[in-house]
This record gives sequence, C-alpha cells and structure tokens, in this order.
Amino acid sequence: MKKSLHMKILVPVDGSEFSNKALLQACNIAKNQQSQLSIIHIIEKPTLNFLDRSEYIKLVKKFGKKILSKAQKICTEQGIASKTILKEGNIVNEIIKIAKNDNYNLIVVGSKGLGAPARFILGSVSQKLAVNSPCSILIIK
Amino acid sequence: MKKSLHMKILVPVDGSEFSNKALLQACNIAKNQQSQLSIIHIIEKPTLNFLDRSEYIKLVKKFGKKILSKAQKICTEQGIASKTILKEGNIVNEIIKIAKNDNYNLIVVGSKGLGAPARFILGSVSQKLAVNSPCSILIIK
Repeated sequence: MKKSLHMKILVPVDGSEFSNKALLQACNIAKNQQSQLSIIHIIEKPTLNFLDRSEYIKLVKKFGKKILSKAQKICTEQGIASKTILKEGNIVNEIIKIAKNDNYNLIVVGSKGLGAPARFILGSVSQKLAVNSPCSILIIK
Repeated sequence: MKKSLHMKILVPVDGSEFSNKALLQACNIAKNQQSQLSIIHIIEKPTLNFLDRSEYIKLVKKFGKKILSKAQKICTEQGIASKTILKEGNIVNEIIKIAKNDNYNLIVVGSKGLGAPARFILGSVSQKLAVNSPCSILIIK
C-alpha cells in the first residue's frame, strides 16, 4: 500500500453477503486510518439480447443505485463517510481503471460474488483483480 | 477476515523487497489490532539435481534462517513481537496448510517475489494464494 496520510479505499459491491463482509472490513480499516472510502458498483453490458437494451440498462441502473444506497447506509452505521460510484462496463476493467486514474491505495473485495456464475469458470473478479490491480488488494473470505 | 479479539496474521517472506513491504504492512495492521504475527519461510525442494541434495538443503536452510531472523528484526523495530516458522515443501501448499491448521485470519503477501522466476509463467505465489487461501489475503503492491 502506498503510504498516504489520507488513504483511498475502493470497495466494489454487488449487494451479496460477500461484498457486505468486504465493506465492513473496509470500514474497520477506515476507522483505524484516516481514509476516503468509495463504494463502486458496475453495471455489466448485456451479453444476451433477451431484453430490450435500454430497458435492461434502466433496470440494472435502478438495481445498482439501490445496492450503492444500501452499502452507503452500512458505512454510515459504522460511522464512516463514503462516496458512491456507478459505472457501466466490464467489472474488472472498470475497477482497475478507476483505481489507477484516481490513485486508490487499496481495493477491498469479497472472495466470491461480483458477477454472473459463469464467470467463476474463467476465474472470479477477485482473482482477476489479484493479478491486475494497480494497488494493494485485500480479498475477504 | 474472521472476527477475533486476537487476530492471527501470517506473512510469507523470501527476503525480497516485496516481502519486506508486506511485512511492514502486517506490522501496521498488528499495531492497530491485537494480533499474533507469524513470519514463515518455505524451503523448496530442489527440482534439479545440480547439487548434492543434503548439501543443498543445508545451504537453503541456513539462508532461510537468515531471512527469518532479518524479518523478525524488522518486526521488533516496529514494536511488534513475532514468531518464525521454517518449512520445507511447496510454497503455496505449505502456506495454505499452516493457515488452515493453525486458524490464521489473514495472510499478508507481496505481489511479487516468493519463488523462482519460472513460477511467474504459471502464476505467482500471491495469485495462487488469492485463489486457494482458506482465510482473507492482503496482496501488497
């Protein structure tokens, strides 16, 4: 982790128990060290055209906002201020892009969750982040 | 991370700058939370018979003890008590075995180092641990 008086922590959330657990750990770190906590949710582009595209995006955006709002509430209950980020794209790529561009020091992520089950065959989000993250990464089991 | 009043942290070291960096971060965590810090070094079995086997083991054991002693000194300088573990075997397997059997809550590891360069082709130790660790893992960049 880069030494910083003001540590920047990024927590990707999907509303699962795994991301909630990661979020609580991130709050614990933020309690011990002056930190700026950001919660990010990424809306994946539909791979199948089973729904009208704009309808789909509208639906998952609404769902994403709800996830972020719930996550922010968890942080507030822990006494930690947080900002929320909603993005569209590939989960891993978007997390890496933001971590790099906005100079985050640490990504805190659950070991499971974050993405469709099919992704697990190719390796989960946390594993891909472990390889490609530009900053330190804490994987919560 | 499992909630525990007495957190158990395992730090694999190989004497590289990457493992020293991970060790310092583990000390920081130990400072903030009552913890038991263990430093582990694993001696890999020789894959090539370029040396007499017993001579080789003797040599790397001596080297391993030196690495552990230096690592322990780093912890002491940070005001953190630590115990050292020296094992023989496959790096990833031994770390996982000990983390599991001795109920560690967190592994702190550098993103690089720990093992022969050839291993990077197959995926580094930190990446393999990210997949197989029985507890939370913090990968330091």
